[in-house]
Amino acid sequence: MQTACLKVIYNSSMDQKSIEVEIGEILTARGLTLAAAESCTGGLVSHRITNVPGSSVYFVGGVVSYANAVKIALVGVRPQTLEMHGAVSRETVIEMARGVRVALKADIGIAISGIAGPGGGTAEKPVGLTWIGLSAAEGEEARKSIWPGDRLAVKEQSAQAALELVLEYLKR
Amino acid sequence: MQTACLKVIYNSSMDQKSIEVEIGEILTARGLTLAAAESCTGGLVSHRITNVPGSSVYFVGGVVSYANAVKIALVGVRPQTLEMHGAVSRETVIEMARGVRVALKADIGIAISGIAGPGGGTAEKPVGLTWIGLSAAEGEEARKSIWPGDRLAVKEQSAQAALELVLEYLKR
Repeated sequence: MQTACLKVIYNSSMDQKSIEVEIGEILTARGLTLAAAESCTGGLVSHRITNVPGSSVYFVGGVVSYANAVKIALVGVRPQTLEMHGAVSRETVIEMARGVRVALKADIGIAISGIAGPGGGTAEKPVGLTWIGLSAAEGEEARKSIWPGDRLAVKEQSAQAALELVLEYLKR
Repeated sequence: MQTACLKVIYNSSMDQKSIEVEIGEILTARGLTLAAAESCTGGLVSHRITNVPGSSVYFVGGVVSYANAVKIALVGVRPQTLEMHGAVSRETVIEMARGVRVALKADIGIAISGIAGPGGGTAEKPVGLTWIGLSAAEGEEARKSIWPGDRLAVKEQSAQAALELVLEYLKR
């Protein structure tokens, strides 16, 4: 259960500059803030971001919207969106990213929703399927991936992909 | 101080059954749900809980209330409480635990607020100081610790202590 944490530490301490440090430097330099809405990653993105000293300057917080009721109540996802497209969909992660950005008054919202497994997969939406969404005042985007590996591997790859999307957005 | 560090290491690599698995088994057996409000741990408690397959049955979600505005808006901490006692206090973690339990309609709310460092410490509230609060329908409690080590060590020891408080509550 602790493997993920250890890997995060490894990333934080061994990399020349970890992605969460780079994101923090850009956000600080530009005076921008970030918020996260996490489903399948379960808090790992927020954990990695807050491993960086000084992250309270640009990270306002996040919501781990594991239950659909939390996605609706705290992040503002519409029940119709969940009914029509499911929790793991482009439409839901976009609403999660926008919702957390608005609710937490941040400049950028990042959202992750996927099927970490081992249960919950279907033929149409297999274990490993993940949607990542980003919302900012000037636009929104989403990306789909299907990750290999076990529950922890899916969480870690999804978290990494979410941080990469934020960094790419900031570097554009 | 040393005991906590050893416990983290022991749990990480040596335990037959990790604390988050044991919590999950008891919550599932009793049909209870859990929600987390995290400040200094930044999502680590939610991450550890959701590393357990099947955790979506009992873990409704959490709020990473890093900014005080998020503690107020999403978790229902009163501005007066933050002004009078500060974000790292018995009063604030109790309101965070109660607030996240009510907002996310869970049976048990766990909350963590501390000073992970390296900045932010004072003579009265040094780096490493952490308050952990638990709220359930039948009662509320809070615990104070001062953890040694760097930012990650403070996060990990705080997360471990929060999970231990939940397990102790469930075993009573």
